Amino acid sequence: MGRVAVTDGMDENAIKQLEEAGHEVILNHYSKSELDNGVLGDFDAVVIRSATKITDKVINSSSGRNGSLKLIGRAGVGIDNIDMNAATKSKIAVCNTPSASTNAVVELTIGHLLSCARHITTGDRTLRSNEWAKKSLRGTELSGKRLGLIGFGRIAQGVGKLARSLGMTLHTYDPYLSPEIAADQHCTLHDDIDEVFRLCTHISIHCNHSDETHHLVNSERIQLMPHVGIDGVQCGNHLVNCARGGIVDELAVLEALENGTLASAALDVFEVEPALDNPLIHHRNFHGTPHIGAATYEAQARIGQEMAALIIDFLEGRRPKSILNPLIF
Amino acid sequence: MGRVAVTDGMDENAIKQLEEAGHEVILNHYSKSELDNGVLGDFDAVVIRSATKITDKVINSSSGRNGSLKLIGRAGVGIDNIDMNAATKSKIAVCNTPSASTNAVVELTIGHLLSCARHITTGDRTLRSNEWAKKSLRGTELSGKRLGLIGFGRIAQGVGKLARSLGMTLHTYDPYLSPEIAADQHCTLHDDIDEVFRLCTHISIHCNHSDETHHLVNSERIQLMPHVGIDGVQCGNHLVNCARGGIVDELAVLEALENGTLASAALDVFEVEPALDNPLIHHRNFHGTPHIGAATYEAQARIGQEMAALIIDFLEGRRPKSILNPLIF
Repeated sequence: MGRVAVTDGMDENAIKQLEEAGHEVILNHYSKSELDNGVLGDFDAVVIRSATKITDKVINSSSGRNGSLKLIGRAGVGIDNIDMNAATKSKIAVCNTPSASTNAVVELTIGHLLSCARHITTGDRTLRSNEWAKKSLRGTELSGKRLGLIGFGRIAQGVGKLARSLGMTLHTYDPYLSPEIAADQHCTLHDDIDEVFRLCTHISIHCNHSDETHHLVNSERIQLMPHVGIDGVQCGNHLVNCARGGIVDELAVLEALENGTLASAALDVFEVEPALDNPLIHHRNFHGTPHIGAATYEAQARIGQEMAALIIDFLEGRRPKSILNPLIF
Repeated sequence: MGRVAVTDGMDENAIKQLEEAGHEVILNHYSKSELDNGVLGDFDAVVIRSATKITDKVINSSSGRNGSLKLIGRAGVGIDNIDMNAATKSKIAVCNTPSASTNAVVELTIGHLLSCARHITTGDRTLRSNEWAKKSLRGTELSGKRLGLIGFGRIAQGVGKLARSLGMTLHTYDPYLSPEIAADQHCTLHDDIDEVFRLCTHISIHCNHSDETHHLVNSERIQLMPHVGIDGVQCGNHLVNCARGGIVDELAVLEALENGTLASAALDVFEVEPALDNPLIHHRNFHGTPHIGAATYEAQARIGQEMAALIIDFLEGRRPKSILNPLIF
C-alpha cells in the first residue's frame, strides 16, 4: 500500500483512518534542505498545512525520475505555499479540504468584528494593567451598520448570514460571483471595489492572496470609508482580515490607525508570519490573533477526515474530490 | 418648569430635549456627603447611572419636608443602587429605560462567547509580548454546543437568537418565565437550575442581582458542567457574565480556572467595581471588560432619549411609562 508523509501535523483519528486502510504514515516536519534534497521522494503522498513550502525544487527532487511523490494534500484551504505549475507539470495531484474549516473562520471573523466594535481586547488588557478604563471604552454596535465583504465565497457567505442576524446589511465585491448567489444571500454585489469601501464602515476580507489581490486594501481605499453608519452613528471605520496576509497593506493600516481613518483593525494573518517585531501589533486599536482562523478542534477533525478520505481514494486508484490542478487530472 | 440633576452623565441630545421642553438641567457628579446632606432636594428629578448611590438617607434628606425630589430616573436597567422601599415610602417615582441597552449587552455577550472560545484576548496579548502562540491557541466552535441562559428576559432572548444562528441549542432556567415564551424562542425551560449546568458547556448570566441570585453560580454548580459538547468535542466549560456582579462567586471561578473545571470565564461585571487588585483578572484564561455592557453610542443615545421623554412626561403631569415602584403610582 502507500506511504504518506505528514509534515505539519494531522488529526489523530485521521491518521488512524489512513493506517486502518493499510497505509504507512510518517509524522515528521522536514527542514528546507531535507525537502530540497528530495526526502518526499520516498512517499506516495504528503499532507501539509501552511508551514511546509512545496517549491518547484521540492517537487522536482521528489517526483518523476527522482521519486514517487504523486499527491500533495493541503490540510486546509490556501495553496499559496505550493507551486501549482510545477506540481501540474510533474503530474502531481494537489488536493485541499475547502469547506472543512469554513465555520471556524466564520466564527473568528464575527468574534473579531465584535471585539473591535466593543474594545474587548483593550478592555481585557487595561484590566490586567490594573486600569478601570470603562469611560474610555465606549463602543458601537454592529446592528444598523453596513458590512463590506471582499470576496463572497463560502466563508464570506457564512459571515454574511451571521452579520445579517446581527442587523447588518451586506455589500460585496467579487468579480467571480454570480449575481444570483449574492441576491440569494441578500447581499448587494458591486462591480467596483471602491464602491464597497465608500459605503461600508466595516470591511472583512475573504479572498485568496494572489497578484490580483496583493495590497487590495491600501491607503486610498481605506480613505474612502465613511466613518458614519447608515444609522447616523459615528462608529468609525473597522477592518478585519482572517483570510491571507498580503491582501492588506499593513503600513497603510498602521498609518490609518494612527491618523484615525481606521477606528480599529483586526488581523489574524500577516504579510510576514510569525508576525513578530511588527509595529502594527502594538497600536492601541489593533486587535490580533496569530493565524488561528482554522485552529479549532472541530475544523482540524473535519480537515483530517476529509484529507484521509481523499488520500485513500487516490491511493486506491479512484479520482479524489477537490483536485485543484487544471485539466490534466 | 422643572429642575433636573444629571449626576452620571447623559447623551447630549437628550439634555437638549429636556432644555427645549423648558426644564433646567444641571450636570454635576455629587459626592456622597453632598447627597447625604440633601443636595438633590433642590431638584424635581435626578438622572443617575450606576455610579450614584441613592440610599434611604439621600432620599429622606431630599424629599418630603426636606426637599422637592419626586423622580429618580435610572438611565439604564439595574436599580441595585437605589433604595426602592425608601423611594416608594417617600412617594418618589423610580423609572428606568429597560430596553434601550438590550442590543448593546447582547452584542457584548456574543463577543465574549466567541472571544473565549477562540482565545481572542490571549492571542492579542501574546502577540503584543512578541510571542507567536498559534500552536497553543487551538479553540473550539460555538456551533454544535449547548448554551445555558440563566434568566431569559429581553437580553437573554437576544443572545439566544444569535446563538441559534451560530448553531447552538438553548437551555434556560428562569422561574418567572412563561413556558410559551421559551417554546417560541426554541429554548428548553428547566425547573432546576442544576440541570442547566449539567447539560451546558457554555453558560451566560442574564438575571438581576438580588438575595435570590447572589452567588447563584458557585463551585458546586460549575462542577456539574459537562466539559464535552453534544457534538462530542472536548470544548471545556465556559462562563460569561455581562449582567451584574455578585451573581457569580468570583473565588469559585478563579478556583475553577485554576483546576481546569472552567476552560474560560468572561466577566464584564464584578463583585467589587472598579475591579482592581482582583486576582481573577490575571488568570490566563480569564477575559474581562470593565462594565461596558451598555457602553455603546447607540445605547446611550437610546437611553437618553427614553429618559428625557420619561422626565418630560412626569414634569408635565403625565404618568411616565416604566415606573418601577409597586402599586402606589
